[in-house]
Amino acid sequence: MTLSTQDRYRTRTRDRLEPISRIEPTVWSGVDGPIDAETLVAHDARGFSVFQDLLGPSEVRAFQDELRRLSTDDKLKADERTIVESKSQEVRSIFEVHKISDLIAELVRDPRVIERARQILGSEVYIHQSRVNYMPGFRGKGFYWHSDFETWHAEDGMPSPRAVSMSIALTDNFPFNGGLMVMPGSQRTFIPCVGETPDQHYKASLSMQEIGVPSEADITTLANACGIEQFTGPAGSALMFDSNVMHGSGSNITPFPRSNIFVVFNSVENEVVEPFAAAQPRPSFIAARR
Amino acid sequence: MTLSTQDRYRTRTRDRLEPISRIEPTVWSGVDGPIDAETLVAHDARGFSVFQDLLGPSEVRAFQDELRRLSTDDKLKADERTIVESKSQEVRSIFEVHKISDLIAELVRDPRVIERARQILGSEVYIHQSRVNYMPGFRGKGFYWHSDFETWHAEDGMPSPRAVSMSIALTDNFPFNGGLMVMPGSQRTFIPCVGETPDQHYKASLSMQEIGVPSEADITTLANACGIEQFTGPAGSALMFDSNVMHGSGSNITPFPRSNIFVVFNSVENEVVEPFAAAQPRPSFIAARR
Repeated sequence: MTLSTQDRYRTRTRDRLEPISRIEPTVWSGVDGPIDAETLVAHDARGFSVFQDLLGPSEVRAFQDELRRLSTDDKLKADERTIVESKSQEVRSIFEVHKISDLIAELVRDPRVIERARQILGSEVYIHQSRVNYMPGFRGKGFYWHSDFETWHAEDGMPSPRAVSMSIALTDNFPFNGGLMVMPGSQRTFIPCVGETPDQHYKASLSMQEIGVPSEADITTLANACGIEQFTGPAGSALMFDSNVMHGSGSNITPFPRSNIFVVFNSVENEVVEPFAAAQPRPSFIAARR
Repeated sequence: MTLSTQDRYRTRTRDRLEPISRIEPTVWSGVDGPIDAETLVAHDARGFSVFQDLLGPSEVRAFQDELRRLSTDDKLKADERTIVESKSQEVRSIFEVHKISDLIAELVRDPRVIERARQILGSEVYIHQSRVNYMPGFRGKGFYWHSDFETWHAEDGMPSPRAVSMSIALTDNFPFNGGLMVMPGSQRTFIPCVGETPDQHYKASLSMQEIGVPSEADITTLANACGIEQFTGPAGSALMFDSNVMHGSGSNITPFPRSNIFVVFNSVENEVVEPFAAAQPRPSFIAARR
């Protein structure tokens, strides 16, 4: 038996591979939760759901204050889990934030959050990654199209796309300030990417992805088949999306910055193994190794 | 009498100047045309109007073919009026295109186009600038916030904001493929910009503007006061907007490119004089000197 027959989701190869139809469900049965039946059916088909008022206004303010506090903590700024933009010295992301902030630790265990994740994944879950993101106005850079699962599989050793992310907006998402774009239904297709993973790739990939990027031809096919939708909504709304949904974001030249709390839940039945296409797994603050 | 008392719209100064309330109307009376009264009132208040079906489907196809022909004409590619991206060698814009293409020459004289311009400016008009723009998918760069009038005043010597632009979309404008964002009502305020115009500035400014850029504080004030709207609509729709409307566009990572025909009409009662804030006027293919 060779690696290529064991690994259903081969990627980062020298030569191009054809897109792969996913076998695993998007919504797994077996665990009840707060998501109604209709929303669940739509999530299964489309790979994402938007919950408009996940947090109330006073909660939004509390988390905004917490993000401000975290981003101005000089000790935390020097922590390896904090990503600082080299030019402006502004904080862009803080990883493993549920182990840094008590308030966010509470949030990721809040039934509104974790029970939705359990319900979709049909099992107990654990946190594969958590972070807060600060995206500035005027100079927000955006992020090119990608599937998170492609990275987590290649670099973290996540066997299957049985993980779900929740992005909780702490600022208003307009159609024009660089919010997430998703391709509905794209989670059903795995797009292998060309090019081997360089060592220490995660350091570069956090700011600018060059490996793990689908070809323009594959993105075009997927966009024509699935269309593109944007995650818009007021502060406090949340997007839950499958680990294999093709997504990206444009730049933000408006004065309206964006910040959010981002948590990835993985099924305990999908624990990470050795990376499928990288020499070393990424640090545990980026991808938990239980 | 000094220059500073003659020039109502001083800009490109060493020190910051306060925003200036415009005195000229946005819609000038005196000339009838195809725009209905309600649309005209809205144009006066907001500084722009969208005409959803300015061109029919067969016209759109004809102009798309024409743009394809122009962008693949090797002789034209070497013309100074053609802006080619240095990296990809793809054509981005062709200036003075109404003197290059018979089809576009016809279009700019089409009553649907020129009579709307005459009606808004309340006089005979002439073409200050024309061009076609090709904006690629995947790598579309966008353009930072600016007022066209600020540039035309500073660098071309346009005395007053009595000019109007029409952008005719030849591809669909979605909210997410980098279409124009405008601030409704912003045309009533002139935002002076800091920094003197370098020589031959137009060559750099066509790809990346650094002079003639409003401050972040001024953009924020204007955005909070006016809001932001996007020009969306199918191929064939047109945006008419006042020369002093604050506008910009984000990047485009979608596979959906954008192209358009862009014409600027200036009132014959507003002919250009010497530049107000540049040593030399720009070449006449960028700004007609009658």
